[in-house]
Amino acid sequence: MDPYRPLDDDARALTRDVLAGATTAALGTLRDGAPMVTRAGCLWLPGQGLFMLLSDLSDHARALAVDPACSLLLGEAGARGDPLTHPRLTLMGRVEPADKPALRAAYLARRPKATVYYDFTDFRLLRLALGEALLNGGFGKAYRLTRADLDALA
Amino acid sequence: MDPYRPLDDDARALTRDVLAGATTAALGTLRDGAPMVTRAGCLWLPGQGLFMLLSDLSDHARALAVDPACSLLLGEAGARGDPLTHPRLTLMGRVEPADKPALRAAYLARRPKATVYYDFTDFRLLRLALGEALLNGGFGKAYRLTRADLDALA
Repeated sequence: MDPYRPLDDDARALTRDVLAGATTAALGTLRDGAPMVTRAGCLWLPGQGLFMLLSDLSDHARALAVDPACSLLLGEAGARGDPLTHPRLTLMGRVEPADKPALRAAYLARRPKATVYYDFTDFRLLRLALGEALLNGGFGKAYRLTRADLDALA
Repeated sequence: MDPYRPLDDDARALTRDVLAGATTAALGTLRDGAPMVTRAGCLWLPGQGLFMLLSDLSDHARALAVDPACSLLLGEAGARGDPLTHPRLTLMGRVEPADKPALRAAYLARRPKATVYYDFTDFRLLRLALGEALLNGGFGKAYRLTRADLDALA
């Protein structure tokens, strides 16, 4: 049984909302081939992709330096209500280096607190090269998005 | 440079709080060897471990049926404040089958809404066989917990 619904405009709008609203992600990386989930700050720039500014000292940055495969869960559960009915988006792909100086203004306009450490040499800006995504809009509302679906959102 | 502090009683108490307070986890599994992070309900029973009740139809249950290695991030970011200063706990390990009938009363006492589907045959109760954990209590407050540290909490 395929639990996925066909993608529609409501699901596309919800995907865009979750991407635009995410300030952090649960970041899944591989450590010695096993999954490791940590929290990382993130920022979606429409038309440019999803970015993470990570310290080289962090466990996730170390893991990604060895294997760039990763997954991000966006959409924190709210303080109220059933967290399993809260919309969330699973992104799968790999990180690639981003142009940190070129993206400085756009990043800091949306994350002003990062001004303090953006230029530190041990902070690296990574972009998610997206593979596939899973949108879960609550019980019974699951969608699968291809790379093309995601590109069409921006 | 090792960014971890030595484990102390405050860090142990914080770990216990995060475990006891978690109703959901960001669950990292492997799909075709790549990380996939999804949201799953969870319940910590002191002295017995961390449990997840998963539908066989879900992506994470399918992934775990192939490879039981997983990681759970506990500690949802609050609605207020900087999410990267919010305490969170990364657990790493593997799932193993749990005794669903034997744990029914303890599980439903704490998760009464699950009464509706607990007995469905396509819902499976899994227990996390813990390896190691990482506690992040906010900026500069990172701790590494071994299996023995975690066992001593219960």
